Amino acid sequence: MKKKDSFKFYYNKDLDFPRGFMAAGIHAGIKKQGPDAAILFSDTPFCASGAFSQNLFRSLSVDLCIKNIQNPIRALLVFSGNANACTGKGGEETIAAVAAETAKLLSCKEQNILQSYTGVIGKPFPAAKVAGQLEKLINTARDKSSAFPFARSIMTTDLAEKKIACEIMTAEGAVRIAGVAKGSGMIYPQMATMLAYITTDALLDKQYQDSLIKRVTGSTFNRISVDGDSSTNDSFMLFSSREQDAIRINTPEKKKIFEAAVQQIALDLAKAMVRDGEGATKLITIHVKSAASEQAAGAICRSIANSLLVKTAIYGADPNWGRIIAAVGNAGVKLSPLKTELFIGPFLIFKNMGYIDTHSKQIRKLFRKKELEITVDLHSGAHSATFWTCDISHEYVTINAEYTT
Amino acid sequence: MKKKDSFKFYYNKDLDFPRGFMAAGIHAGIKKQGPDAAILFSDTPFCASGAFSQNLFRSLSVDLCIKNIQNPIRALLVFSGNANACTGKGGEETIAAVAAETAKLLSCKEQNILQSYTGVIGKPFPAAKVAGQLEKLINTARDKSSAFPFARSIMTTDLAEKKIACEIMTAEGAVRIAGVAKGSGMIYPQMATMLAYITTDALLDKQYQDSLIKRVTGSTFNRISVDGDSSTNDSFMLFSSREQDAIRINTPEKKKIFEAAVQQIALDLAKAMVRDGEGATKLITIHVKSAASEQAAGAICRSIANSLLVKTAIYGADPNWGRIIAAVGNAGVKLSPLKTELFIGPFLIFKNMGYIDTHSKQIRKLFRKKELEITVDLHSGAHSATFWTCDISHEYVTINAEYTT
Repeated sequence: MKKKDSFKFYYNKDLDFPRGFMAAGIHAGIKKQGPDAAILFSDTPFCASGAFSQNLFRSLSVDLCIKNIQNPIRALLVFSGNANACTGKGGEETIAAVAAETAKLLSCKEQNILQSYTGVIGKPFPAAKVAGQLEKLINTARDKSSAFPFARSIMTTDLAEKKIACEIMTAEGAVRIAGVAKGSGMIYPQMATMLAYITTDALLDKQYQDSLIKRVTGSTFNRISVDGDSSTNDSFMLFSSREQDAIRINTPEKKKIFEAAVQQIALDLAKAMVRDGEGATKLITIHVKSAASEQAAGAICRSIANSLLVKTAIYGADPNWGRIIAAVGNAGVKLSPLKTELFIGPFLIFKNMGYIDTHSKQIRKLFRKKELEITVDLHSGAHSATFWTCDISHEYVTINAEYTT
Repeated sequence: MKKKDSFKFYYNKDLDFPRGFMAAGIHAGIKKQGPDAAILFSDTPFCASGAFSQNLFRSLSVDLCIKNIQNPIRALLVFSGNANACTGKGGEETIAAVAAETAKLLSCKEQNILQSYTGVIGKPFPAAKVAGQLEKLINTARDKSSAFPFARSIMTTDLAEKKIACEIMTAEGAVRIAGVAKGSGMIYPQMATMLAYITTDALLDKQYQDSLIKRVTGSTFNRISVDGDSSTNDSFMLFSSREQDAIRINTPEKKKIFEAAVQQIALDLAKAMVRDGEGATKLITIHVKSAASEQAAGAICRSIANSLLVKTAIYGADPNWGRIIAAVGNAGVKLSPLKTELFIGPFLIFKNMGYIDTHSKQIRKLFRKKELEITVDLHSGAHSATFWTCDISHEYVTINAEYTT
């Protein structure tokens, strides 16, 4: 990140949610153990923008977010261990009851509440277990607000918490941005694929904030996959608190640095999901260069990233690059095979429809590393895309053969 | 298969290739061991029709088939263990040399020869090993023609040979049809996904034969998947020999029974590939009913069949049906979630966006069986589709993490 004017952007791992936000996470009993209910709220209504699952069977809680996100927001509740998707009338009633109870406790309206759920799809939601816990949740956040239990509470098969924060120094003072996310399986970018929340104490126009989240989603959460399955509950939201002396992001310079910071946090959270992909042992970065359009570059990235044969070969450290080329050829994108080049790390391995064996030893070594970089150069335009995915291991099969049972 | 008029269709597992065809398979040295070179030829030119890989990086041998298949054909050669795809100039030279040598040995032109290759993509083809073996291959077929070594020679990761034959009794005599195929990994229907050859001694118009293979491909090989990856070498061809007294398929009645027979053989070969899918432990049949179009029904079938989460859940006998619904919702097909019903075997499990728990015990049992039937009823039209796939197991990961190394 370049320094620019009076702005300074730096990571701060210990930084909590920005001014105005309170957060907590507790065990409500949805999961057998571990925290599974979280809240993020503010006494001053905050401004929210979002990107959501496009799965047709998405949870009603997602529909509710899409509806309510236009309003000033007082609280976001997140429950993990149950997606509350495809749960019929019962699921609907739970969502209504949680909204009513929270609105009462926070003295606001139900349309000022957002809710996210994540976990098994189609299993009746244990509404009774949650009902009595909302007051405790709010009180915990008021007593000792912390982003860490929040980040832990929203996890399902995740092995690691995903929380990133930064500060931007401006002439008027510091602006803080903090993001948390969960996601490890059923990860594939049709939209925002997972749960992620980025908060800031900067003052943003709602319109600017809405456009910002779109741009950031396109180049971060929509550019990752673990298994090619898209969830019914994906949500990525950006919240800006409305504290009295908030620093307004209202000049092109401020917008530029602010957007770069949000972009960086979203990308770090997205990559953290891929690194923590179910059973993943490797992070794979895919670049497609010189494509005729960004859409074409993205489609080729996706075809490689979703190829089970590519992912298992990389797991096995098998430099079977023909599978990558087969995936390029199946992407549904018009391209010239004769112009197409494939690089593993910095080494050219395929050109003029044939193998280049000059660096086979080095390439073999690269396949054994924890991170692999694949570059496809189409030599047919000025557009490019980058995509992140992971390998598919025995552990992935074990985790997903035994998820609900 | 219904009896009709004077026709009688019956399976005959011992039946060899029909009259006019000679076949053999030998070890040429492409693989470390086992037969890897096969020929199917005829002294009277035969009529060929085909459906081929649409992968943009497909083997030049596929391009050659597409070009030559309009001509009368004398021979098909198949080499396994190396796809001869993405092999540049060297691969091109091999294909030319094999054509020239075979044409010389059979006293025909190079454009009367078809070639298929299957195996690792991008590895230089060991042309020298094959060069001296073509004469031996032809002589073996002349001495002792047999479909069985042919079927074995074209296998790669297949565990079982795939060969099916039948006879149709007509008033004029018997018509024979025999099919062989290979396919176990990199199986996904963009076209004909694998190698499959169906032969007959019936006399077919070229035009009729070309239209027949299109129809049959659409409902058989284009309706299966193992891993969602499409190969660079997929080919499905139909050959009719031109023996002097061949029975002509020239009436609507004959065409109907003949087409049904070819359809049945193709379907059996396609299902054999899925059963023999790399690491597969279960055969999964997916029906989509009452869709607005056949295309919509097919897209939903494909989305379920390619969901890694659905396939690993079924491997683990985990009745996690929410993953099936999530895959339906991600198919890119417009549908009404509220009208959508999901059945496991005969049991309704999902309706009105909610779980039906009436048969959970029976459903749990069905998930433990070797074959599972999934039906999605959209209640929104008159079109349907059926699709066959298999589960993804630890063994699949093992096979594909260690393929070339």
